[in-house]
Amino acid sequence: MRADAARNRRRVLEAAEAVFAARGTSASTEEIARRAGLGIGTVFRHFPTKEALVEAILLDRLTNLAEEAESLSTDADPGAALLALFRRMVDRSAAKRAYADALADAGLDPEVTMSQVGQRLRSAMDALLTRAQRSGAIRDDLGVTDLIALVVGASRAAEHAGWDRAVQDRTLAVIFSGLRPPPADTPA
Amino acid sequence: MRADAARNRRRVLEAAEAVFAARGTSASTEEIARRAGLGIGTVFRHFPTKEALVEAILLDRLTNLAEEAESLSTDADPGAALLALFRRMVDRSAAKRAYADALADAGLDPEVTMSQVGQRLRSAMDALLTRAQRSGAIRDDLGVTDLIALVVGASRAAEHAGWDRAVQDRTLAVIFSGLRPPPADTPA
Repeated sequence: MRADAARNRRRVLEAAEAVFAARGTSASTEEIARRAGLGIGTVFRHFPTKEALVEAILLDRLTNLAEEAESLSTDADPGAALLALFRRMVDRSAAKRAYADALADAGLDPEVTMSQVGQRLRSAMDALLTRAQRSGAIRDDLGVTDLIALVVGASRAAEHAGWDRAVQDRTLAVIFSGLRPPPADTPA
Repeated sequence: MRADAARNRRRVLEAAEAVFAARGTSASTEEIARRAGLGIGTVFRHFPTKEALVEAILLDRLTNLAEEAESLSTDADPGAALLALFRRMVDRSAAKRAYADALADAGLDPEVTMSQVGQRLRSAMDALLTRAQRSGAIRDDLGVTDLIALVVGASRAAEHAGWDRAVQDRTLAVIFSGLRPPPADTPA
């Protein structure tokens, strides 16, 4: 892709994120083009359908998470790094869920669409978890499948509580406390 | 309701639960009548629509949970009682979710349908939680809203992991460990 085409693609994605956040994913492509300061033809050249645009945003967000997870993998405090990633994933699940729902409504399966970048994020989480367990910060009977199930569960808990920040903080405090190795004197 | 009418209603509900569990909620009313050993007219007299039948099962299950929660409220070990209820709710969420989905598909809002029995279950959970906190088994910064969010989250985690029993056990172990009061020497 030429540099100006890549720049335009990025502008469309950023405009679409802002418009979707304000109006939901049913907002019009015309509005996105206006906000990006580009012609509607340019938007359609990069993203022929609304679904292609939504999918690109979802991929973009998951790629960002994977990059963040990878950059946390050299953090001096592996336990804190893992919990920071956990918290970010829950925080961003509200928007991600809206995008995934929009894709599913359009008949696209987000699981399939996301499999490659999902795998990259999973690998990065696995590496973070192993490091945190070696440092003694996280109980060592957990695998990355358990960790992902807990992130998904914590996200659903936050959604169920209407994204009430205090409830989200307390439920994460429970899960984070439970992720620590159990005290030696208390049988699990 | 006369005693034989009540008995027939109960037989239809039990047959419907068995048939729905085997074939999903799209199974026919004829099959339910056959399994109950009753005429189809009797089934329709008690439950004029499939939705009425699904709703009755959902109410039944939630009422059972509320009764179990209430009977646990005098248990000698309040902490263990609370965790036992938590585990049962997660175990039963798979079937409950299928019924709730079937109702939603039929255009009925399960939140509204369930509000009265849902409130009863919530009150019983609140009483169990308060007792468990007074006994020192559960951290005292949590309210019943947090507890329900955690049950919903743990149920979603179990669903995400395809109801794999080992993953479910480990994610519940994390949450149950985190529900304990944090050790005094470890800041939360």
